[in-house]
Amino acid sequence: MNLEPFFAAKRIAVIGASREPGKIGNVIFSNLIKRDFQGTAYPVNPNATEILGHACYPTVKAIPEKIELAVIAVPAQLVPKVIDDCGRKGIRHVIIISSGFRETGNIRLDKQLEQVLKKNKILAIGPNCLGVLDTSSRLDTLFLPPERLLRPKQGGISFISQSGALSSAVLDLASQQGYGFAKFISYGNAMNIDESDLLAYLADDPATDVICLYVEGVKDGKKFLKAARKAAQAKPVIVLKGGTTEAGSRATLSHTGSLAGTAEVYLGAFKQARLAIAHDIDEMLDYLKIFDKLKTKPRGNCVQVITNGGGYGIITADEIAQAKNLKMATLSTTTARRLKKNLPPIAIIRNPLDLLGDATEERYKTALEACSADKNIDLLLVVMLPQTPLLDLEKLAAQTITLAQKSKKPIVAIITGSSLAQRFAQKLEEAGIPCYDFPVRAVRAINALVERSWLAG
Amino acid sequence: MNLEPFFAAKRIAVIGASREPGKIGNVIFSNLIKRDFQGTAYPVNPNATEILGHACYPTVKAIPEKIELAVIAVPAQLVPKVIDDCGRKGIRHVIIISSGFRETGNIRLDKQLEQVLKKNKILAIGPNCLGVLDTSSRLDTLFLPPERLLRPKQGGISFISQSGALSSAVLDLASQQGYGFAKFISYGNAMNIDESDLLAYLADDPATDVICLYVEGVKDGKKFLKAARKAAQAKPVIVLKGGTTEAGSRATLSHTGSLAGTAEVYLGAFKQARLAIAHDIDEMLDYLKIFDKLKTKPRGNCVQVITNGGGYGIITADEIAQAKNLKMATLSTTTARRLKKNLPPIAIIRNPLDLLGDATEERYKTALEACSADKNIDLLLVVMLPQTPLLDLEKLAAQTITLAQKSKKPIVAIITGSSLAQRFAQKLEEAGIPCYDFPVRAVRAINALVERSWLAG
Repeated sequence: MNLEPFFAAKRIAVIGASREPGKIGNVIFSNLIKRDFQGTAYPVNPNATEILGHACYPTVKAIPEKIELAVIAVPAQLVPKVIDDCGRKGIRHVIIISSGFRETGNIRLDKQLEQVLKKNKILAIGPNCLGVLDTSSRLDTLFLPPERLLRPKQGGISFISQSGALSSAVLDLASQQGYGFAKFISYGNAMNIDESDLLAYLADDPATDVICLYVEGVKDGKKFLKAARKAAQAKPVIVLKGGTTEAGSRATLSHTGSLAGTAEVYLGAFKQARLAIAHDIDEMLDYLKIFDKLKTKPRGNCVQVITNGGGYGIITADEIAQAKNLKMATLSTTTARRLKKNLPPIAIIRNPLDLLGDATEERYKTALEACSADKNIDLLLVVMLPQTPLLDLEKLAAQTITLAQKSKKPIVAIITGSSLAQRFAQKLEEAGIPCYDFPVRAVRAINALVERSWLAG
Repeated sequence: MNLEPFFAAKRIAVIGASREPGKIGNVIFSNLIKRDFQGTAYPVNPNATEILGHACYPTVKAIPEKIELAVIAVPAQLVPKVIDDCGRKGIRHVIIISSGFRETGNIRLDKQLEQVLKKNKILAIGPNCLGVLDTSSRLDTLFLPPERLLRPKQGGISFISQSGALSSAVLDLASQQGYGFAKFISYGNAMNIDESDLLAYLADDPATDVICLYVEGVKDGKKFLKAARKAAQAKPVIVLKGGTTEAGSRATLSHTGSLAGTAEVYLGAFKQARLAIAHDIDEMLDYLKIFDKLKTKPRGNCVQVITNGGGYGIITADEIAQAKNLKMATLSTTTARRLKKNLPPIAIIRNPLDLLGDATEERYKTALEACSADKNIDLLLVVMLPQTPLLDLEKLAAQTITLAQKSKKPIVAIITGSSLAQRFAQKLEEAGIPCYDFPVRAVRAINALVERSWLAG
C-alpha cells in the first residue's frame, strides 16, 4: 500500500476550493498557496474561474497536468461523483475532508462512497477528517487558519488521530511548547485507510522517530496488533484510547462511528504490542517529549534526584517510589566521598541530593559530574528552581547542556515558574533535555521511558 | 495567640539589612521600600549609616519609634542576641529568615533560640524560611527579587508552606496564571509558630477564602487535627504532604528537621479533618483554582459535558466515569426535546452533548441555557476548543460569562491550545469561570469540589 503521495505529492487538486474567506475549501487552498508548500495546488470549482489569483478548473479532469493527490471538500452527497472524476483523471490518492457519512447515520451514502473508491482503486484518508500535515514537504490540508492553529516546527514526532478537534488542539498547544513534528494525520472515519495502515507506514518512515496515536475504535484487531507490534519494535509508539469507560465508549459510536469495545481487550492488546499507554492528553504530551528528546537511553531504572528545593526533592522522591518501574538510586561511596569533598558541608548528600536554596551553578556542576560517573545511577532527574537568588541561569543552562552532551546517562529536568523559568526550560529543551513543570509529569515520563527500554531489550 | 502583626505591622525593622545588591538583607529591605508596603521599614546594621537612602540603625533599640515586627536576616549564631535586643525594644513578633539551626544539625543553637524567644515572650515565624507576603498591606519579606519571583494579585487564596523553594516556585507560576492570593507564609522550621497556629489564624481571616498547606511533618498531631477540622469547617483547606513514601520521608528530616511519620496516619488525619488531599503540585493548583473561583456550589454530583470536539468529550466522559464522586448526568426528556428543536439535526444530543467541529457560539448558547435549566444536571463542564473555524471567541466569552452569572449551576471549562486559547481562557477566569487545559485536571478538581460540598453539606 503506497501512502507516500499523501505526504509528498507535488501536484494537488483542491476540489471544492472556494473564494469565500473562512470556508473550508478557501482555507485549505489558501494554506497551500500562501505557506511554504513545495508543490503546486490547483483549485477546482465549477462556479469560479479564478480563486486567490489562480485559474480555477470546473472539474479535476480539466486540469492539464497529472495530479497526484486530490483534497475533497465538497458537500457529502457530491463526494461519490467527485471520486469518479478523480478515477478518470488517474488519481489514486484522495483526502476526503467532507463529513456527513456514517458518523451522522448516513449509511447509504457511506456504502456508496466505499464502492466508488473500490471501483476506481483509490486510496482515501477520511471522510470526516482534517487530513494531513507534513512538515518536510509542507503539504498541509488542515482547514484551520494559522491564527487559530499554530503549525509545528519540523521534528521527529508523527501523530495519527481519529479525532480532528482533539488532535488539532493538541497540535496547537504542542507547537507553542516547541514540540517538533514530522507528520500529522487526522484520519476520521477510516473508511479505507485505517490506523493500522498509517502505523505500518510510519514504522518505516525515516522522518518519524516517535509515533503517537489517538484512537477510539480499531477497525481490524488482528491487523492492528500486527502493525502496532512491528511499529513498536522500530520506534516508541504512544497510544491514547478514547472510550475506556462505558460512558465514554457510548459516545464513540456517534463520533467516528466506531465501536470502542471493552477497555480491557484494548489495553491488553496495547500491552502485548508494547505500546506506551497514556491515560490523558497531558500524559501523552509528557511521553512524547521524553521519547522525542532523549537520544541517550537509560541502562537501568535507578534515578538520582538533584535539587535546590528540599520540598521539591521530597515530592519527587515520593513520585519515584510510587512509579511502577523506577527505583531511587543509592550513591556509591566514591560518589558520596567526592561530593562531600567538593560541596559545602550543609549540602545534603543522599538521594535526593539537596544543594539547598543558596545553590550556585558550581554546586550543580559538582553534583552532575559526580553523579554522571556513578555506576549506581542510570538517570539524573535535576530540579532547578530558578527563583533562588544565587543561580546564574545563563551559566547553568550552558553547563547543563554541555554535561548532558558528554554524559552517558539521560538527564531530565524539573523547572517550575513564570517567564524566567519558561525561557530557561526552553533553552534546555532546544538542546535535547526534556523539562517538566511538575515532579509527577517528569516521573511518569521517565517511568514510560524505562519500560520501553526494558521491553526493547 | 495574636498573629495579626505578622501581616499588618506598620513599623518594621529589617535586622541585617544590607547595602550589597543580591544579599538577602538587601533584597528584603529593598522590596519593602520600593514596592507598595503600606508602612515604614527601618534598616538595622551596625556597619552602615545609610542603606538605599534610608538612615540605618546600629541596633533595633536605637530606632526611636515603636516597632511592631522585626525581620531577622543575620547569620544564625547572631540570632539569639538579636532576639534579646528585640525583647528589650518591646517587640513581640519576629520573622527569622536565617538558616543554620536544627535543619543543619545545630541542635545547641536551636535550643538556645527557643529559650531566648520564650524568655522574651516573642512569637516567631521561622527560622529557615522566606517569611510572609500579604497582598493587602503589601508586607513582603520574601528575599527573592520580583524578576525571579512574580508577586500575585490580591485574591482569596492563602498558602502556608513548610518549604520555601517549593512555595516560591508555585507562587511564581500561579501569579503568572492569574491566581489571586491573600497571604503567603513560608514558616520553615516551625520552632515557635507552627502550621496549626497558622491554620487557626487563617480560618478566621476574612481576607482568606481558601487555604492551601504544604507540610512535611506536623509538630503536634492533636493540635493539628483540631485546627484543621475547625479551618475546614470555615473554608476549603487543601493539603499536599511531602514524604508520603519511605524515600521521601527519609529526606524530610534533613529538610525541615521534621519526622514525616507514616503516610497512612497523616492521610487518615487529613480525611478525618475533611481536608482536600492533593497528590502533587499540579493537583494542588487545580484544586485551588476551582475552590477560589467558583462561588456557586454544586447541589449534587451529576456532570453534563458540552463539547465541540468529539474526542475531547469522550476523554472527559472517561475521566468522569472514573472519578470517585462523580456521575455523568442524564438529560431530562424536556431538555433533550428542547435541544433537538433548537440545534441542527447532526448535533449529538446526549452526554457528552456534541455540538461538533462547526459549532458556533449560538449552539453553545442553546446548549448552556437548556442544560442550566435541567434539574438532572448539577454542574456543566464545557469543552471549548478555539481551533475550530466558526467560533467567534469574543462573543462566546461574553455570552458564557453572562450565562455563568445567571446560572444556578457551576460552570467549568476545558480549553486547550496556544496564545489564542490562553487569552480566551484568561477572560473567562477573570469572570470567575475556572478553566483547565486538560480533561483530567478539570475532572479531578470537580471531584474535589463535590466531595467538599457533600462533607460541608
